[in-house]
Amino acid sequence: MRFELTKDFLGLIRVKIAERDELWLAENVLELHYADVAEILDKLTNDQAKFIYFLVDEDTQADILMELEEEVRDRFIASLSTKEIADQLENLDSDDAADILGELSSRQIQEVISQMEDDEAAEDIVDLLNYDEDTAGGLMQKEYFQAQLDWPVNRALLELRKQAEDVEKVYNIFVVNESDQLVGVLSLKRLLFAGVKTKIADLYQSKNIISVNTSDSAEEVADVMEKYDLVSVPVVDYQKKLVGRITLDDVVEYIKDGADKDFQFATGITEPLEKDASIWRISRKRLPWLIIGLIGGAFGAKVLSGFEGGITKIPALAFFIPMITAMGGNVGVQSSAIVVQSLARGNKMMGGYLNRILKESLIGILNGLLLSSTIFVIAYFIGDIKLGMVVSVSLLTVIIFASTIGTIIPLLLHKYKIDPAIATGPFITTLNDVVGLFIYFTIGMLLYGM
Amino acid sequence: MRFELTKDFLGLIRVKIAERDELWLAENVLELHYADVAEILDKLTNDQAKFIYFLVDEDTQADILMELEEEVRDRFIASLSTKEIADQLENLDSDDAADILGELSSRQIQEVISQMEDDEAAEDIVDLLNYDEDTAGGLMQKEYFQAQLDWPVNRALLELRKQAEDVEKVYNIFVVNESDQLVGVLSLKRLLFAGVKTKIADLYQSKNIISVNTSDSAEEVADVMEKYDLVSVPVVDYQKKLVGRITLDDVVEYIKDGADKDFQFATGITEPLEKDASIWRISRKRLPWLIIGLIGGAFGAKVLSGFEGGITKIPALAFFIPMITAMGGNVGVQSSAIVVQSLARGNKMMGGYLNRILKESLIGILNGLLLSSTIFVIAYFIGDIKLGMVVSVSLLTVIIFASTIGTIIPLLLHKYKIDPAIATGPFITTLNDVVGLFIYFTIGMLLYGM
Repeated sequence: MRFELTKDFLGLIRVKIAERDELWLAENVLELHYADVAEILDKLTNDQAKFIYFLVDEDTQADILMELEEEVRDRFIASLSTKEIADQLENLDSDDAADILGELSSRQIQEVISQMEDDEAAEDIVDLLNYDEDTAGGLMQKEYFQAQLDWPVNRALLELRKQAEDVEKVYNIFVVNESDQLVGVLSLKRLLFAGVKTKIADLYQSKNIISVNTSDSAEEVADVMEKYDLVSVPVVDYQKKLVGRITLDDVVEYIKDGADKDFQFATGITEPLEKDASIWRISRKRLPWLIIGLIGGAFGAKVLSGFEGGITKIPALAFFIPMITAMGGNVGVQSSAIVVQSLARGNKMMGGYLNRILKESLIGILNGLLLSSTIFVIAYFIGDIKLGMVVSVSLLTVIIFASTIGTIIPLLLHKYKIDPAIATGPFITTLNDVVGLFIYFTIGMLLYGM
Repeated sequence: MRFELTKDFLGLIRVKIAERDELWLAENVLELHYADVAEILDKLTNDQAKFIYFLVDEDTQADILMELEEEVRDRFIASLSTKEIADQLENLDSDDAADILGELSSRQIQEVISQMEDDEAAEDIVDLLNYDEDTAGGLMQKEYFQAQLDWPVNRALLELRKQAEDVEKVYNIFVVNESDQLVGVLSLKRLLFAGVKTKIADLYQSKNIISVNTSDSAEEVADVMEKYDLVSVPVVDYQKKLVGRITLDDVVEYIKDGADKDFQFATGITEPLEKDASIWRISRKRLPWLIIGLIGGAFGAKVLSGFEGGITKIPALAFFIPMITAMGGNVGVQSSAIVVQSLARGNKMMGGYLNRILKESLIGILNGLLLSSTIFVIAYFIGDIKLGMVVSVSLLTVIIFASTIGTIIPLLLHKYKIDPAIATGPFITTLNDVVGLFIYFTIGMLLYGM
């Protein structure tokens, strides 16, 4: 049975908050999973959310806080005093604390840090603030299990028990030498079943240890964790010293972001949405793609003005302009999307680039033949046989052209290390519009003998 | 230092395989991480890959096999005898074994199963084959740690040690009652530090236990694991009996798929690509969106034929057809993409639907004003003031219309439980084309007094 938030329940919660009915809230809300409590708080006003939040025990507060939607959390933090923020940070994992602190002004950061009671935690957080947000250093947390090579298992258990308080989720133990350099990992499972006198040196795994460097990008970390099936990965500095740990849940969003980014390119949104961004800012972010469209439209107009005589004589030619541009655009986007997706999934284009281009062209010819014979019939009924012929021959040519160019452009971009996803958006549509119109009217002029 | 596969190294490997230089391969290839070995095998011919594969020890074989690209793995399996397949399956986790078996014909499945030596493993796999591939039952594995409520810690450790051989990655232990019903979970960390006489009943966590049902869809499982930050989730049947476990790495692809699917809709690809699909099949898959475009184009032609008189008199009107359709399409896709992305991320449209629509319209007006004044200048230089006015007024109207409709349609689809991502693709572009043309020519006729 999983929790599902209903409107009625939310309404009831609002009433109980207004009545300050702490008992009811404790029994009906605080007993829920922290992720569900966070879902409820997301829907409440800041004051209502605060009322429930401060009824919760400290450990769960930390969990709830990190599950809130980002803007809800920012609003919530902004409504706290620096002392209150400092208290909240003490319960958080260092990476989460650093993330929250990173949103504040440097004056506020200083105030909050100075009011933290746990100096060691404060130091960890300050250290993490030095790293760029989108690097392994910015993602890592300072809480992890660490064991020395020369410890026997019983010593390790004793030491780990001390560390256990800080480390919320344990997947494995990182093994270091006397200079704190990472030399291997040890699974909790192995430790659990080992004799108490066995040395860590005889238990741990030292071969093919995967680690990331503090300066590696978040995307690289996500790639590495995905490739090597890791739930957690140790982070080392330039001297190979162990400095942190990144868990899979911290990079899941980057795994998703890759695909999201492709979607954004394909739909002409240059940056991820921020719900609270002003209309001016949103408008500015969308303009670049629109301007490309406008320039393309201007070129299109220029091309068409070159065929003014033809349009005047046979105005029916103009009827099919939207169809030619639409089909060229659709086919081009499909082809480029397939290439972008193959590249994103790391498929290595087994048959090579040429093979790929050939295949897309063949698909283009096949679909082009099907569609252009359909359109021949339609055009015949709207105009005449000659028009039908012009439109269907042009459509076939445009489709073949669009599918070929839709394949070549992302491959070229990829080769020159530009994100090929650019080619799935307005860019390729616009290019196909202009070229398609030129093909269409050239064929039209030829067939009509003008 | 992470491994990077170079062309030279790959060439050398090919030479060493040809020379049957097992020693060199053992030292230079087999020592690598299994994911890297798999990456190498992906690039080799089937015979070359097989040569290396059978040099590897059995446990690592299983790891490599599951890391191969799907088509490479299918080709590899297809080249093995049923006895060899049976041997391979014995080393795999039950979920992976079932996946591989699921690709074979029912006759082959029967043969392979009958040749497996480990009857229990065979039974587990056969059981898993009953579940639909895209459900929790189809994703789960039969290998997990399980402890009874009434066991003391030392008994639990003993029992778990027996289970340990099968369970590759352990994150936590599932606790069951005497009827094998899931009653809670126990982290390995807690077990590690508990006294040997403590009862599991006094250690385990029973509150807010998240589990999934065998019939839950893979997407639901991915959502649940993401929402509740789970690395592994227990799977129960309708009687609440524990029947399996799903780990995060098994659902990461579904988390990605969500975003990928949006991209596919936006770009008019109806299904994920299969690299080895025939040209006929690929062509068929892409046709639906293209036919929508064709129908839209036919409607567009119909609309334009209604304005034939206008086009004959002022052919310059036709020049801006591509611009009007392109801008309507781009703006509409942007707006709908924003809505789709908000919905996909579970943002709850804080201000409500109306607010959202209003905001998009405002952005439309703002961008529309900017772009249409630009176009007024361009049109002025190509045609004349009157044409400039017609184009810019139409463009403004079309942009406002497109951004509003681009917001409303995905919201409506979402309300009626249809995937709103449909609205980011050719569908919305086509709709905006037709309506945009109508607006453009109506305004044109009015301003030219026709």
